[in-house]
Amino acid sequence: MATKVIKGGTIIAADRTYKADVLIDGDIIAQIGADLSGDEIIDATGCYLMPGGIDPHTHLEMPFMGTHSSDDFDTGTAAALAGGTTMVVDFVLPGADGLLAALQDWFQKAGKARTDYSFHMAITGWNKQIFDEMPKVVERGINTFKHFMAYKGALMVDDDEMFASFTRCAEIGAMPLVHAENGDVVAHLQQKLLAEGNNGPEAHGYSRPPEIEGEAANRAIMIADQAGVPLYIVHVSCEQAHEAIRRARQKGMRVYGEPLVQHLTLDESEYRNKDWDYAARRVMSPPFRDKSHQDGLWAGLASGSLQVVATDHCAFTTEQKRFGVGDFTKIPNGTGGLEDRMPVLWTKGVRTGRLTPNEFVAVTSTNIARILNIYPRKGAILQGSDADIVIWDPEASKVISAKTQKSAIDYNVFEGIEVTGLPRITLSRGQIAYKDGEVLAPTGSGRFVEREANAPANRALSTWKELTAPRKVERDPKNIPAGV
Amino acid sequence: MATKVIKGGTIIAADRTYKADVLIDGDIIAQIGADLSGDEIIDATGCYLMPGGIDPHTHLEMPFMGTHSSDDFDTGTAAALAGGTTMVVDFVLPGADGLLAALQDWFQKAGKARTDYSFHMAITGWNKQIFDEMPKVVERGINTFKHFMAYKGALMVDDDEMFASFTRCAEIGAMPLVHAENGDVVAHLQQKLLAEGNNGPEAHGYSRPPEIEGEAANRAIMIADQAGVPLYIVHVSCEQAHEAIRRARQKGMRVYGEPLVQHLTLDESEYRNKDWDYAARRVMSPPFRDKSHQDGLWAGLASGSLQVVATDHCAFTTEQKRFGVGDFTKIPNGTGGLEDRMPVLWTKGVRTGRLTPNEFVAVTSTNIARILNIYPRKGAILQGSDADIVIWDPEASKVISAKTQKSAIDYNVFEGIEVTGLPRITLSRGQIAYKDGEVLAPTGSGRFVEREANAPANRALSTWKELTAPRKVERDPKNIPAGV
Amino acid sequence: MATKVIKGGTIIAADRTYKADVLIDGDIIAQIGADLSGDEIIDATGCYLMPGGIDPHTHLEMPFMGTHSSDDFDTGTAAALAGGTTMVVDFVLPGADGLLAALQDWFQKAGKARTDYSFHMAITGWNKQIFDEMPKVVERGINTFKHFMAYKGALMVDDDEMFASFTRCAEIGAMPLVHAENGDVVAHLQQKLLAEGNNGPEAHGYSRPPEIEGEAANRAIMIADQAGVPLYIVHVSCEQAHEAIRRARQKGMRVYGEPLVQHLTLDESEYRNKDWDYAARRVMSPPFRDKSHQDGLWAGLASGSLQVVATDHCAFTTEQKRFGVGDFTKIPNGTGGLEDRMPVLWTKGVRTGRLTPNEFVAVTSTNIARILNIYPRKGAILQGSDADIVIWDPEASKVISAKTQKSAIDYNVFEGIEVTGLPRITLSRGQIAYKDGEVLAPTGSGRFVEREANAPANRALSTWKELTAPRKVERDPKNIPAGV
Amino acid sequence: MATKVIKGGTIIAADRTYKADVLIDGDIIAQIGADLSGDEIIDATGCYLMPGGIDPHTHLEMPFMGTHSSDDFDTGTAAALAGGTTMVVDFVLPGADGLLAALQDWFQKAGKARTDYSFHMAITGWNKQIFDEMPKVVERGINTFKHFMAYKGALMVDDDEMFASFTRCAEIGAMPLVHAENGDVVAHLQQKLLAEGNNGPEAHGYSRPPEIEGEAANRAIMIADQAGVPLYIVHVSCEQAHEAIRRARQKGMRVYGEPLVQHLTLDESEYRNKDWDYAARRVMSPPFRDKSHQDGLWAGLASGSLQVVATDHCAFTTEQKRFGVGDFTKIPNGTGGLEDRMPVLWTKGVRTGRLTPNEFVAVTSTNIARILNIYPRKGAILQGSDADIVIWDPEASKVISAKTQKSAIDYNVFEGIEVTGLPRITLSRGQIAYKDGEVLAPTGSGRFVEREANAPANRALSTWKELTAPRKVERDPKNIPAGV
Repeated sequence: MATKVIKGGTIIAADRTYKADVLIDGDIIAQIGADLSGDEIIDATGCYLMPGGIDPHTHLEMPFMGTHSSDDFDTGTAAALAGGTTMVVDFVLPGADGLLAALQDWFQKAGKARTDYSFHMAITGWNKQIFDEMPKVVERGINTFKHFMAYKGALMVDDDEMFASFTRCAEIGAMPLVHAENGDVVAHLQQKLLAEGNNGPEAHGYSRPPEIEGEAANRAIMIADQAGVPLYIVHVSCEQAHEAIRRARQKGMRVYGEPLVQHLTLDESEYRNKDWDYAARRVMSPPFRDKSHQDGLWAGLASGSLQVVATDHCAFTTEQKRFGVGDFTKIPNGTGGLEDRMPVLWTKGVRTGRLTPNEFVAVTSTNIARILNIYPRKGAILQGSDADIVIWDPEASKVISAKTQKSAIDYNVFEGIEVTGLPRITLSRGQIAYKDGEVLAPTGSGRFVEREANAPANRALSTWKELTAPRKVERDPKNIPAGV
Repeated sequence: MATKVIKGGTIIAADRTYKADVLIDGDIIAQIGADLSGDEIIDATGCYLMPGGIDPHTHLEMPFMGTHSSDDFDTGTAAALAGGTTMVVDFVLPGADGLLAALQDWFQKAGKARTDYSFHMAITGWNKQIFDEMPKVVERGINTFKHFMAYKGALMVDDDEMFASFTRCAEIGAMPLVHAENGDVVAHLQQKLLAEGNNGPEAHGYSRPPEIEGEAANRAIMIADQAGVPLYIVHVSCEQAHEAIRRARQKGMRVYGEPLVQHLTLDESEYRNKDWDYAARRVMSPPFRDKSHQDGLWAGLASGSLQVVATDHCAFTTEQKRFGVGDFTKIPNGTGGLEDRMPVLWTKGVRTGRLTPNEFVAVTSTNIARILNIYPRKGAILQGSDADIVIWDPEASKVISAKTQKSAIDYNVFEGIEVTGLPRITLSRGQIAYKDGEVLAPTGSGRFVEREANAPANRALSTWKELTAPRKVERDPKNIPAGV
Repeated sequence: MATKVIKGGTIIAADRTYKADVLIDGDIIAQIGADLSGDEIIDATGCYLMPGGIDPHTHLEMPFMGTHSSDDFDTGTAAALAGGTTMVVDFVLPGADGLLAALQDWFQKAGKARTDYSFHMAITGWNKQIFDEMPKVVERGINTFKHFMAYKGALMVDDDEMFASFTRCAEIGAMPLVHAENGDVVAHLQQKLLAEGNNGPEAHGYSRPPEIEGEAANRAIMIADQAGVPLYIVHVSCEQAHEAIRRARQKGMRVYGEPLVQHLTLDESEYRNKDWDYAARRVMSPPFRDKSHQDGLWAGLASGSLQVVATDHCAFTTEQKRFGVGDFTKIPNGTGGLEDRMPVLWTKGVRTGRLTPNEFVAVTSTNIARILNIYPRKGAILQGSDADIVIWDPEASKVISAKTQKSAIDYNVFEGIEVTGLPRITLSRGQIAYKDGEVLAPTGSGRFVEREANAPANRALSTWKELTAPRKVERDPKNIPAGV
Repeated sequence: MATKVIKGGTIIAADRTYKADVLIDGDIIAQIGADLSGDEIIDATGCYLMPGGIDPHTHLEMPFMGTHSSDDFDTGTAAALAGGTTMVVDFVLPGADGLLAALQDWFQKAGKARTDYSFHMAITGWNKQIFDEMPKVVERGINTFKHFMAYKGALMVDDDEMFASFTRCAEIGAMPLVHAENGDVVAHLQQKLLAEGNNGPEAHGYSRPPEIEGEAANRAIMIADQAGVPLYIVHVSCEQAHEAIRRARQKGMRVYGEPLVQHLTLDESEYRNKDWDYAARRVMSPPFRDKSHQDGLWAGLASGSLQVVATDHCAFTTEQKRFGVGDFTKIPNGTGGLEDRMPVLWTKGVRTGRLTPNEFVAVTSTNIARILNIYPRKGAILQGSDADIVIWDPEASKVISAKTQKSAIDYNVFEGIEVTGLPRITLSRGQIAYKDGEVLAPTGSGRFVEREANAPANRALSTWKELTAPRKVERDPKNIPAGV
């Protein structure tokens, strides 16, 4: 097979920045160094080479009310590549047939992917079958289990179920994820708002105030701590949840937080738009927040209390959003973002000085790969790593528009934002998957990435928990009375 | 009726200290001033006059496993008087017959009381009868409703029930109380500990770590905030719960915290005692904590993030404690303290300089009366107030001992502690109820104290919540699409 | 002398609200109760009776650049009475002749006062004379000493001087006050801004960012803690300083915080006004802050982490403000507020539900009197208290305007704000000092109020510090080597 | 030159763990991979390969009272190698002749080093010469400037000087370091303690309570933020300083914290030892703290709020310590630790599960190299990096003892602690510098490592500060009055 060499670029890694050529042999980075040669030369002059982005949080072709979210693994991963993202991690939502059956369905759907992919497995209830299947899911290369604390009557689990599942995760070396919102209180607020005639999209925001997210994050953290397992909190949107995470981390608890690029840059004023469609398209959970939450999220990325940036890409068309006319609780929750995550984050983060370029790489790729335990196969430009590389032109600009996007939906929540810093070429396992506005990777070229259990954080935490486990007080039998 | 005058003492109020005589006419303080005269003179030279203590948290004759806690309203209130406490607030635990029926039972039991008393009503489930009876309970003079977040399978309510009940409290101007511990997680930890052979009294502490209390406190606070009602958290024992309270208060939420005198002064090392009985006698929930929690609780009393000191007096004999030999979860939860609360708090608080004498009065009496909305009938030495007065000898000393206590049980968790600062005389509604070691108030001399709803904090909070309530975005119908 | 009785009103105290008549005999409240009669009847139907406001922070006729702040003790206290304030505490700024000489000057100036008054003594350097005079100042009835951490080259003291003075305060039972801003850094920022051409009034705000105030507050707290003395921080304007105070209080340190009514309600956008005069009139230190700081200050008043509300009334005319055209550092620092403090706070605090009426009384009067150790002579409607009473009409409204104010200056920073809740009548020591828009108290009718040292907080703190003082490790001489 | 290959080991990097051989050619790592061969084979079976430790904080041959700290660059770096540390960063303390002259002295002294080394330059005053020489120091390869906030009358600088120097650092792309203790207050407390007869070594601890460190850390952070420069706080010993750092980082400030291995593992009870010598040998600043501070420091290392672990190695003999008999302020401040840092941290950190092995590498080497801007030349096992490698035997054990140490002093503060995890071989730039208990690197084999200015954090911060700099309000001249 012909080799490729990327010449003239500057590599940005999570830990350093340096000039070097990159030689690719097949799927793999074969060598990094000066003056490399290969069969095919890719010119990266003036560009940065960064590990391809990983989006740890997508919902492609997610089943919903008899239909699906409108980006599937084909269009969704096309959008990803156009934005410099070379791997997505989607969520398997099991039904009555159990985890393994659902996993098969998702493998089926993901056959269309143009990028590599992995899954998180959702735990939406608790029974012996789930208990038994969890280690089998781990054997299949999935080491993360998602728990919804919201969506009462549907996906939600209660504390009892969470403790059981988290404990099981601890036993099998896996890590729980949580969607942190108090579903009981959300349900009450929804009913109250509707009863008061508050039925528009803005009521979606009112029904899910930040306090409700902060509470749930705090609760999940406690349960994970008691179960002795690390915890990953998805879509951290507000100071309340972030504070809970910081408080846990300052006690040495191993908790990770994932803000979305949407919450970092957009705010609740969007819901007050006088156009119903405009507002409804922004409906997602957690909702956009008051702008005052954003500074903290950015600071978290720089200081390490938040580690990764995702999108929760779950694209519904305007038509689908209109299920909720007259009743905001029926607006399908979700927005896009896969194509925009990296350019928007670069523009609002790196160009402002909020993040260093290295931190950008960390939060869009390297940290994710490490936390998900696929590093350095993914998330790195290192010899032996998969050749998932984005050739980033820091001076290229565009105005984001639904008209030119790869996503299948008819709008874009970042519409009109000018970004500077764009992928010129995206390579996926050594192949040019995107170049100059065109997605070249064929449908189905993506591969499943197995993720091993027992990441270093799990092992360290288990050691500590064993060391500090409760010790029985040994008493002389003569000092123990007869029972009653 | 003959009047009494207390002469020569120094009045300590929550807001000031001054020398004055106090004239009592019947139940009531008729006058305060210099050189008063009356039919009977009580000499208070060298003593402080303080409003009689109020213990906002007792369980007298509480039903338990076919028996009852061993101090009833007779012995319990005798102990109270001997310690300078002239009013107790006990908990009504309703059964299947509803709130009003249970209230009758408790009125019955309290007929024996030697001090005035009131009740908190427990909400241990949720249904239409409870919803309907709550305002009737308020009409009976009870403005506080207790919620147990622990004791799974027994008293525990879930978030859904709490939100419903808190909302009801907001509507009727009442205030919810919570026992804050995550009952689901406690239940799991209990089973885990027992399964590991950890069955001694120390495992009680292990099964209820402070994180579990902090989580529940935080959750209750969020629910109260969303329901728009003040909140009172009983037996705050640890930094985690206290931190949640402080965090809420610094956002303007109206949350009160009640540490117990036990948690202020005793610690978890008690459970490591080699004598099973010794350890089991200290079993209560929340359990005694690592000493590091205490400084914060004391600071909270001085700085106002915690407002009141209680005992959770729920006295079980050693014989009753032995129900739990071989299974710590069966040890009845509860300790005494009614007689010792004020002397121990004075000794460890005022004499050390942690609290001013005025703060002592605030946290043992005045703040309680204000929060429970019976001030200044109770909690004050003011003209027109009930003549509940303790004549406090700041130099009197004793060593606490079960041998000399008024409580019906056979031990005392403060055994051996020397206290300096003791009641010389306790007056209850103008009568000398305790003097020189003797309880003089007859069984049944206590009266029920009605407490009105709609305290100032409730009203202010309701105003604020109305002002900041979600507002519907008004949209031109042409900007609202047809639904799907 | 004829007695007066105020009939038909509702008394709001810091701890309760109740209907009662108030009988005044001379300067003093003689009796409180139902159906009182006296020589003169003042009708308070529909009104609240509250203890007259105390402003703990004014600068009347303060010397400045060869002139003085434009409200003197005559006009300033007239404004006070019109706003329901019956006592002011002003600052003595000593010169080279020492503390006692300066005190004489201030007694002289205050001879014109129409309200009662007291002083804080500023410590603006350190030497033996100051050390020696401090106890004499205390003997004169002044128990508080002010320290400026800003105004480099003028009033500023350094850490060394603060520690010495705070220690002296501890010895003599007095309390230090601080103006908390890091004067060194302010001076640097001023020079930098001017060098960059940033010379307008908005640069005043830029030169004193909240971090600079937070730092100084934190530093003063540490010094007070090491010196073993309570601390009072004036004009707390921002979250950073408030956070430092909360952090101290949660450790049991005795620290008080005083926000100003200006910072509670006005914000930095005022400095961006296109009219230089408008902006310059708002120049004070600390400057107005970003609106995000306000919620926390209000919450602090409700939760008790902040205790009192002041004005820092230091009124300069527009003409005086213009000293700083072309150089913002020369704009005299100060605004008015004495007349508006109580109506603005009632409108923005009580009517919104942020504060209960009782909390309003606490923060405008009672807490101040307690902290300054003149309670209950001042700050209370109690038998025996000075008859400083404001008869408050909660439904009376007006629009604040410089045109109708009593202050001598030509503008008002609250111009155009509509307030609801105004004094109908203000009584000062039993005399009707203000009624229906007219100030009736004659110039010079005010009296100096002596304030004793050794307040309860001082005594408690000293006890605790003694108890926890470092203890020498006793070593056997044979275990101590010979020195080198 | 002959090549070396290390075979059979497992490489632990800050970001991953993997098995590979390492080929060394001269000073440099030439290749990393499977089945490498070279001229000389070093067997690492069963061992970990980690980048050589970097100690960012040492004082070798530091001048003191006419003598010097007793480990010089020869013995000190020998100790370093024996403990797996291959680079030290020492402090240049300039005298009256300025920075460059002092730098020459230190180059001279460091000529004896057996490991590579760099310097931090101390700024102990402020004048034009210092201002002018700072960029020349940067040209010499030193990008960090140390500021002592303690040691009044000697090294201490005040806020004015710090702001000037920090601003200068910002201009030249350098980073300030601070020793954070309030020197004014320390001086007062020292005098007070001595006056009270508290002259033993324990009084050293009393004179420098954690509040004093926390205050100074907080102040330095504010000054750095205003000057627009990252900040590195050395020897963070207590929760108070750590809290200030966390608070800054959560606002996005770029602040680094360096705990010492001593503070992580030893506590103030050492000073209460009945043997004067024992206690005096532990005297360093900041002093050992109450054990309660340690959990937070460990958590900080795991969560990223603290980044590096150092020793502040400054070794004085017992003889030298005895300068302070009868006056604790004369006990020379300093302890050893260079040889013990890595084994103690591994034992107490990695083996307990507090840290992952990767985190261990990060805090002992990689993070330090990144922060000091010498990564990946140092701090990494990467192709092209200096071959500074420690071959770590995780099962090797020893009991630490002064009898067997390489340091020149006669005691060891870790005496008697059993460590598991020790270097088998330490390579310094490709040479076997330590093996099986013997230091093989010759005196003088170390080289100075130049460190460039303008690290990524500096550049990002400068961008942000420029973006958010104060903007002048443009006013129409007609809206600006004439000045006065």
